[in-house]
Amino acid sequence: MDYGMYFFEHITPYETLVRRMERVIASGRTQYQDYFLFETKGFGKVLVLDKDVQSTEKDEYIYHETLVHPAMLAHPDPRRVLIVGGGEGATLREVLRHPSVERAVMVDIDGELVEVAKAHMPEWHQGAFEDPRTVLVIEDARAYLERHEDTYDVILIDLTDPVGEDNPARLLYTVEFYRLVKSRLNPGGVMGMQAGMVMLTHHRVHPVVHRTVREAFRYVRSYKNHIPGFFLNFGFLLASDAFDPAAFSEGVIEARIRERNLPLRHLTSRYLEAMFVLPKDLEEAIAEETLVSTDQNPFYVTPEGEARQAPYRG
Amino acid sequence: MDYGMYFFEHITPYETLVRRMERVIASGRTQYQDYFLFETKGFGKVLVLDKDVQSTEKDEYIYHETLVHPAMLAHPDPRRVLIVGGGEGATLREVLRHPSVERAVMVDIDGELVEVAKAHMPEWHQGAFEDPRTVLVIEDARAYLERHEDTYDVILIDLTDPVGEDNPARLLYTVEFYRLVKSRLNPGGVMGMQAGMVMLTHHRVHPVVHRTVREAFRYVRSYKNHIPGFFLNFGFLLASDAFDPAAFSEGVIEARIRERNLPLRHLTSRYLEAMFVLPKDLEEAIAEETLVSTDQNPFYVTPEGEARQAPYRG
Amino acid sequence: MDYGMYFFEHITPYETLVRRMERVIASGRTQYQDYFLFETKGFGKVLVLDKDVQSTEKDEYIYHETLVHPAMLAHPDPRRVLIVGGGEGATLREVLRHPSVERAVMVDIDGELVEVAKAHMPEWHQGAFEDPRTVLVIEDARAYLERHEDTYDVILIDLTDPVGEDNPARLLYTVEFYRLVKSRLNPGGVMGMQAGMVMLTHHRVHPVVHRTVREAFRYVRSYKNHIPGFFLNFGFLLASDAFDPAAFSEGVIEARIRERNLPLRHLTSRYLEAMFVLPKDLEEAIAEETLVSTDQNPFYVTPEGEARQAPYRG
Amino acid sequence: MDYGMYFFEHITPYETLVRRMERVIASGRTQYQDYFLFETKGFGKVLVLDKDVQSTEKDEYIYHETLVHPAMLAHPDPRRVLIVGGGEGATLREVLRHPSVERAVMVDIDGELVEVAKAHMPEWHQGAFEDPRTVLVIEDARAYLERHEDTYDVILIDLTDPVGEDNPARLLYTVEFYRLVKSRLNPGGVMGMQAGMVMLTHHRVHPVVHRTVREAFRYVRSYKNHIPGFFLNFGFLLASDAFDPAAFSEGVIEARIRERNLPLRHLTSRYLEAMFVLPKDLEEAIAEETLVSTDQNPFYVTPEGEARQAPYRG
Repeated sequence: MDYGMYFFEHITPYETLVRRMERVIASGRTQYQDYFLFETKGFGKVLVLDKDVQSTEKDEYIYHETLVHPAMLAHPDPRRVLIVGGGEGATLREVLRHPSVERAVMVDIDGELVEVAKAHMPEWHQGAFEDPRTVLVIEDARAYLERHEDTYDVILIDLTDPVGEDNPARLLYTVEFYRLVKSRLNPGGVMGMQAGMVMLTHHRVHPVVHRTVREAFRYVRSYKNHIPGFFLNFGFLLASDAFDPAAFSEGVIEARIRERNLPLRHLTSRYLEAMFVLPKDLEEAIAEETLVSTDQNPFYVTPEGEARQAPYRG
Repeated sequence: MDYGMYFFEHITPYETLVRRMERVIASGRTQYQDYFLFETKGFGKVLVLDKDVQSTEKDEYIYHETLVHPAMLAHPDPRRVLIVGGGEGATLREVLRHPSVERAVMVDIDGELVEVAKAHMPEWHQGAFEDPRTVLVIEDARAYLERHEDTYDVILIDLTDPVGEDNPARLLYTVEFYRLVKSRLNPGGVMGMQAGMVMLTHHRVHPVVHRTVREAFRYVRSYKNHIPGFFLNFGFLLASDAFDPAAFSEGVIEARIRERNLPLRHLTSRYLEAMFVLPKDLEEAIAEETLVSTDQNPFYVTPEGEARQAPYRG
Repeated sequence: MDYGMYFFEHITPYETLVRRMERVIASGRTQYQDYFLFETKGFGKVLVLDKDVQSTEKDEYIYHETLVHPAMLAHPDPRRVLIVGGGEGATLREVLRHPSVERAVMVDIDGELVEVAKAHMPEWHQGAFEDPRTVLVIEDARAYLERHEDTYDVILIDLTDPVGEDNPARLLYTVEFYRLVKSRLNPGGVMGMQAGMVMLTHHRVHPVVHRTVREAFRYVRSYKNHIPGFFLNFGFLLASDAFDPAAFSEGVIEARIRERNLPLRHLTSRYLEAMFVLPKDLEEAIAEETLVSTDQNPFYVTPEGEARQAPYRG
Repeated sequence: MDYGMYFFEHITPYETLVRRMERVIASGRTQYQDYFLFETKGFGKVLVLDKDVQSTEKDEYIYHETLVHPAMLAHPDPRRVLIVGGGEGATLREVLRHPSVERAVMVDIDGELVEVAKAHMPEWHQGAFEDPRTVLVIEDARAYLERHEDTYDVILIDLTDPVGEDNPARLLYTVEFYRLVKSRLNPGGVMGMQAGMVMLTHHRVHPVVHRTVREAFRYVRSYKNHIPGFFLNFGFLLASDAFDPAAFSEGVIEARIRERNLPLRHLTSRYLEAMFVLPKDLEEAIAEETLVSTDQNPFYVTPEGEARQAPYRG
């Protein structure tokens, strides 16, 4: 390591990833979180929010294809889509690639961050904020959902992990919140979400999220993918009351990819389906998990990545 | 990060993983390589050889199940097995779980390292070195294969990546070497190997290994798995001239796991098969790779993880 | 920075010194503190106790000459000397160089650490523990002084800084303790001590120690020296009720160095005297300091190096 | 160490100082060097040029008083002063405090850096660039001195160390350059300079500079001071052919400080004089040094801080 600027990210309490920064593009604090945007040689631009790397320019396509398309392809005709979070606009971008979409509402609490993304992260949004189908709402997603009774075919949840006991995002990781989301799904609708890093040696963040969602939905299916820029496996999930979103009928996903003419770089129909096959240790950890995150006693992730449960004192 | 001892591993030229060491168990230099064995809170004991983390106590089962069982299960009746490398004995341990095995020959060049493993890493070998079916040979694997005409049902290659231009392991990553391995397979035999980390943003180590093996074998199938303790996806492959080792007949793997009574912690038959489904970007990188590593011009990995090709000047 | 083992020391809350470790010689925890002894290329062996580097093989002569000889040379005929702390034996070694010394009592609470030093740090003690004039006592220094009424010509205090609110050494940094020390000095006796790092930009550890000692002694003189292996200036002081220990009569120090035939490597009489000349900012910080550390309300140093005062709850 | 941005400075090949950056104010590369300007909690703004910390807001007064006033006070009536280097303007600021100064010429090769300082470092220059006595020249100092025959009462050299074999500053550290400087001194003139870090355990940068200057001047006197923000002792020197600049007549420095009404924060006359008293090991290292840096074979400092000698190939 040469002299110069580095970014420290504590992936676990005992392992820290140190990234060389070629240049700091922007850094500061919004009303809700710290942000850092810097240039690296390996991953291009890197965005960090409140302690954790959120996205990198060179591999964000992997994360966003993984988050968006399983849910969108599980639905035969997604017209109305809600995105909870997703500040930099790439989740929105991928949603808009599905030609059936008529309206994509993105609700993010942090308008300052969206402005940072608009100004400095065009590689992510690629103009998605200007798409006529886009409705951008700056508001707490839970409050928005409570106030509006609009319903959607697909709801995508793209939030930062609820790191820190005082993190307001904790109330977006509870049974009550997932029930609220469900109530805003059209018949046949599906929810897709980023569901926490997977590192069974160290913690059970993903199992807790899965267990909690299962309390609200009939069908919950975890899947996972390795995100190179996070240096971790990340968990995702689909949830629905209408159908099992991982019961792929032969050829259906492949046909939908073709019909919708999706320009995929990472996913194929076969790989999409394979992501839902979990290793035995993860299957068991999910099956054995008992912690349910509730409004009364919502879980949070310690700065070091451990899942704990305690009342939230906003 | 509190005060104390840490280990720096340069995963890429721009990203460094810093691990807290609770205790240093052993460190030094054998005739062939530096070694460090230390205790961590997250992964238990961690073994580092020449710059790279090789194995951790808490997740070695993931690595070794991934390396060993696809090849062993691809074969209907593996009796004679050769392990190239595999110093700490866990590859051997997993091989010996298959009851058909009559003889497992392990050839590792570094006898000093095997002694370190015997003394300090019982969690890995678990007595495998004392199994009556085990034959331990301390010798350069290539020289051994050239001198001995014994043949095997399965040959497993468990080597460190050829990091560094002066690394003698470079001659164990060439077409000529793979042809030599093939000549020591029985009819119907299969080769399985650790085939380099996968990080397409930074390099093409795995595609080069795959491309090179394809020059020697008729059927070559890559698979990959996330190894938590490496914080990376790693590539593996199976190769055979006799059959396509990824053309899984319905139920065969599951049946063999049951018959052989394998105590698997990470793999299931479904997950084993899913590991062979690659994402599109990796499929394409493999398909497009042209570099073939040869004795004349063997490839090597720079300390930072890039694949290069140059004559080896011993 | 190459791959390998490093030691992190937080010199301040915002600046961390990272030292490459070639080899870990010993590490563990005694009843009283963590210890780490490792080999480095620049400073040879490095000893760390409870967060802070205590001594390095290559420059310990600077620290120990600076601590010991000003007090010993201030006294015309030091026969009986007490050392409080000083576990690795180098303070003792320097004391014994003065031929008038008949008895050197070293009281250190941490017998395990003295054993580590005897076994692994011969460069420090150089046989001093075997000198017939040496009396080694393993006990809390304060308890020892309270129980024994022996008196001394010179008392040297060589303690770790009272880092941490729960550090028992805090009771060795109070007015009451310094009064106890004074009561064990012979007429004409002098106390010399390591008196905390000097970093006025960050904290006032040395001024607090100086101010506290001044509550107990008539004459208190600070001096300072740069200790390369600490990457800091360190404060020391002499205290006496009998005479001003920094009122050097022309030629006296030089004459004593010659008479006693001291094999000095760092000090000369001129440099010894120059160390007592302080820069204006430090003079002012000492003059303005008001915090007095008492048994009721002893001061301590936060892990980051700040001086605070609070009751000690054993 | 919390998550966030850090700066790595390799103080030696084996010891690295890691500073927490609160905010990056500016960073980039001028025609001549990399620069980084960032905010820290302990030292305020920190300026790094080509690998090494040059100055920090909170302790720059220590460095600049140490560099400037010994030379200025050694001269009874400094009217014309030349500053070689000194880009951020604080050396100039301290020079201008002497009321006798009529003209202060500052020659720095790096105009871009001066602009960065003007824009972002007002705490350093404090308007000095606007003083009517100031003449700012953007040019290589050696070329300037060769072309202009103006002479000065005091010449101050405030350069970065010649780090790196390809560093053009190497030709500002040779006998020939010092002879050129001498030829531009008025009768009774004196040269003062920053003369390299002092770390005898690791290298002999200061002794080499001293030895080289001695080849050009009759009287050369080293002095040193601890610079907290560098975490090192730094060497300085005065040189003159007219008089011994460290032969302080009783009361003269004190009288000049008073007459000139200097608002000193770190220096007193006594401390100024004490800085010239060197410890024995440093005195010996200077006395024994034989390396003389010449145009033919100029010395340079390796990135790790070692002094080497080799022809300069522009």
